[in-house]
Amino acid sequence: MELSHIDKNGNAKMVNVQEKDVTRRVAVAEGKIYMQPQTVVAISSGDMKKGNVINTAKVAAIMAGKRTADIIPMCHNVPLNGLDVDLITEEDGVKIVATAYTDGKTGVEMEALTAVSVAALTVYDMAKAIDRAMVISDIRLMKKSGGKSGEFIRSEENENR
Amino acid sequence: MELSHIDKNGNAKMVNVQEKDVTRRVAVAEGKIYMQPQTVVAISSGDMKKGNVINTAKVAAIMAGKRTADIIPMCHNVPLNGLDVDLITEEDGVKIVATAYTDGKTGVEMEALTAVSVAALTVYDMAKAIDRAMVISDIRLMKKSGGKSGEFIRSEENENR
Amino acid sequence: MELSHIDKNGNAKMVNVQEKDVTRRVAVAEGKIYMQPQTVVAISSGDMKKGNVINTAKVAAIMAGKRTADIIPMCHNVPLNGLDVDLITEEDGVKIVATAYTDGKTGVEMEALTAVSVAALTVYDMAKAIDRAMVISDIRLMKKSGGKSGEFIRSEENENR
Amino acid sequence: MELSHIDKNGNAKMVNVQEKDVTRRVAVAEGKIYMQPQTVVAISSGDMKKGNVINTAKVAAIMAGKRTADIIPMCHNVPLNGLDVDLITEEDGVKIVATAYTDGKTGVEMEALTAVSVAALTVYDMAKAIDRAMVISDIRLMKKSGGKSGEFIRSEENENR
Amino acid sequence: MELSHIDKNGNAKMVNVQEKDVTRRVAVAEGKIYMQPQTVVAISSGDMKKGNVINTAKVAAIMAGKRTADIIPMCHNVPLNGLDVDLITEEDGVKIVATAYTDGKTGVEMEALTAVSVAALTVYDMAKAIDRAMVISDIRLMKKSGGKSGEFIRSEENENR
Amino acid sequence: MELSHIDKNGNAKMVNVQEKDVTRRVAVAEGKIYMQPQTVVAISSGDMKKGNVINTAKVAAIMAGKRTADIIPMCHNVPLNGLDVDLITEEDGVKIVATAYTDGKTGVEMEALTAVSVAALTVYDMAKAIDRAMVISDIRLMKKSGGKSGEFIRSEENENR
Repeated sequence: MELSHIDKNGNAKMVNVQEKDVTRRVAVAEGKIYMQPQTVVAISSGDMKKGNVINTAKVAAIMAGKRTADIIPMCHNVPLNGLDVDLITEEDGVKIVATAYTDGKTGVEMEALTAVSVAALTVYDMAKAIDRAMVISDIRLMKKSGGKSGEFIRSEENENR
Repeated sequence: MELSHIDKNGNAKMVNVQEKDVTRRVAVAEGKIYMQPQTVVAISSGDMKKGNVINTAKVAAIMAGKRTADIIPMCHNVPLNGLDVDLITEEDGVKIVATAYTDGKTGVEMEALTAVSVAALTVYDMAKAIDRAMVISDIRLMKKSGGKSGEFIRSEENENR
Repeated sequence: MELSHIDKNGNAKMVNVQEKDVTRRVAVAEGKIYMQPQTVVAISSGDMKKGNVINTAKVAAIMAGKRTADIIPMCHNVPLNGLDVDLITEEDGVKIVATAYTDGKTGVEMEALTAVSVAALTVYDMAKAIDRAMVISDIRLMKKSGGKSGEFIRSEENENR
Repeated sequence: MELSHIDKNGNAKMVNVQEKDVTRRVAVAEGKIYMQPQTVVAISSGDMKKGNVINTAKVAAIMAGKRTADIIPMCHNVPLNGLDVDLITEEDGVKIVATAYTDGKTGVEMEALTAVSVAALTVYDMAKAIDRAMVISDIRLMKKSGGKSGEFIRSEENENR
Repeated sequence: MELSHIDKNGNAKMVNVQEKDVTRRVAVAEGKIYMQPQTVVAISSGDMKKGNVINTAKVAAIMAGKRTADIIPMCHNVPLNGLDVDLITEEDGVKIVATAYTDGKTGVEMEALTAVSVAALTVYDMAKAIDRAMVISDIRLMKKSGGKSGEFIRSEENENR
Repeated sequence: MELSHIDKNGNAKMVNVQEKDVTRRVAVAEGKIYMQPQTVVAISSGDMKKGNVINTAKVAAIMAGKRTADIIPMCHNVPLNGLDVDLITEEDGVKIVATAYTDGKTGVEMEALTAVSVAALTVYDMAKAIDRAMVISDIRLMKKSGGKSGEFIRSEENENR
């Protein structure tokens, strides 16, 4: 088993994708920010209020997803066809789902995972005055298609936790 | 209970810190990326290999921590005095601890939490070729001091999960 | 009359603010994006829809305002205490007002003007599919206080147009 | 009439361009910064002085145009083939024309409009010490070709103002 | 002899690459940071210590190489297939070699040269506490292939120094 | 002799400047891009042409100097009071001098060195069509004052080359 981002001398390395094919690639990531039920209520209550915490987190997620190669050192700069981000309020927190799309030589898992992380951090920032104990968890790749490594679908078997 | 980042019309709002005092502020955040034991071994085995995944994640975390106000929409631009990031390999993953320091008008929780998130995303990116099922979890504020809201120390009582 | 940003050889120059005092500074800028009445209706109709074009433009404006020194070459990097951005729908368009606050050695006119410009560009981007002929106009400084040059209040006398 | 950037729940949305064709696309935008005649003279007088305010604004416009997707939340990252920016001094101000070129799945109106806006803001910044009352106006799309929506040419009929 | 980045009026200009072919392009750049022999020893001694100055410089170089169009005004945004950066410790300093790869309409010399420069600056920053007199020199293009201008290989004949 | 940016485990580390005093700090850096005499002539000939290569390089240098902490991983974000950049054409190339000013807890050597490097890279980019063999050399700190480590003035004794 070999780490793809490490060169012969053990230093970090950007993988060369020159010989890879351009294929249609999609990646879906999820995560959740856990909070007190009344924090969920504060975020949700009042149509506008909900719209705005949720919408602001969504805007931040899309902007960060587009800048993934700026934030994650060994990521290639991949122009996205689209990036969907959804925030779903649940009883004990907000679930986040991001789907990234490209036609490129490399996958867009990091774009989807970065979008989820930044959406969660933005919700934390905007609600922290009333609940500092929120926890961001379960950020993971759900599905990925396209490219040589083929399809990945998260299942009980490949769960790490 | 009122969200501090929402204005009268329900839109997102940057809190004005003009009347706040400049105080010494410290924030500690933690998180963990869970993975297969053999992935931990791959990251750790060979002094250089470990040094580099860990070191690359640390560099990414520090760079992202400094750019928090660029990534999280309602965050103030806070020049940091320092930002410590530690990655500790455990049997089932890598634990990340970040501590941010400033003398400023506003806290640095978001800088610490952003650093932890980006360290975890970078580890994911560099090890994903051998383990796509890794999960980033438990990103949370552990401690915070300075400012009007006083000290916060995470305890069983204020746990959300 | 001499341009402050030009050096002896005629090249662009960043003004040195070393000897200036740190004072409380506020700047207010305004602008408007003109559009067809039905475009205003489309943006406004439905509480959520309005909330989101307006909120997204506001988020973009705040993020750009914080990065003004990255966008405008000779601007100093000024940490803002706050940046208020309001978008007001009118019959023939959306009026934008931005107020920037700092305690610093240099004014924050450019932060307020940049925020207004980016809010207008974001509204254009989000509504352009239904109205490509929108016009962004009347971006100007309304008021400025703090610093050696004293207060500026826009009046009929100092109007350029 | 429906806003393309709003999803079913009313939140902001990045349009998915996956099924769009790659076509040659051009967009032309214009704008003007109005100022006192003597401010125009100060900018223009002396070959070098003119060269430099104008040249600095041009450089800022090109750099911002390339970063449009970083500044405007729902814009796709579109690698430009070229971006021409011209600043023309007139009696009562400086007219700005920007033309953006790409071979892509989505148009480059926002790149052209962002370049015009940033050129105007840079002129304001560099001349504001002698004329705070300058007004940035008439920023609008003049022409656009390529893509499914076809050609747009601004005319008296589609004027909003 | 005519400078390609200057327009008819003498202002800076981004070259339009619309009519250029997409070809495979590679560029190799080199440079060196000269330092006291004991500074080289301090960087090299201890496996981990070396790994980290070297690795941090490498990470910084790759991140800057990806952002070249953000830093160098007239550069096109070129998505890289790969960017290799090597730092080789020598008796009197650290030699840096960067190779940039793309399939694009324009060359990647600037990406390779920017990566070398930022690697050297990062080494300087991390070692300056023990040796402020280090000198960054000999940053130059070694080789370039692809594109209409054909191959360039540095030789004694085309040396400038 | 110990590297200040390495922590106990050998990983990169951002130095904590919390206990340092805010003092007035100045740093001067120099460098040179060597080129064929006729390339110097091409850059210099025609008042406007010179103005613009030189001015564009200067603008790029100032913008990069302000973003040094974004580019160099372990640098603190230091708001600059000023940043002077001069480009002097000589027979065999262009000499660059940058002076950075701040009132802060940490020095601004990296800001001055980064400005010099980016000015040189920009000159290379704009003149490379007529002279690919240019060499960027002799980038070094000339002088530094302020802070606990006191004054540094480059002399023959502390030369590395």
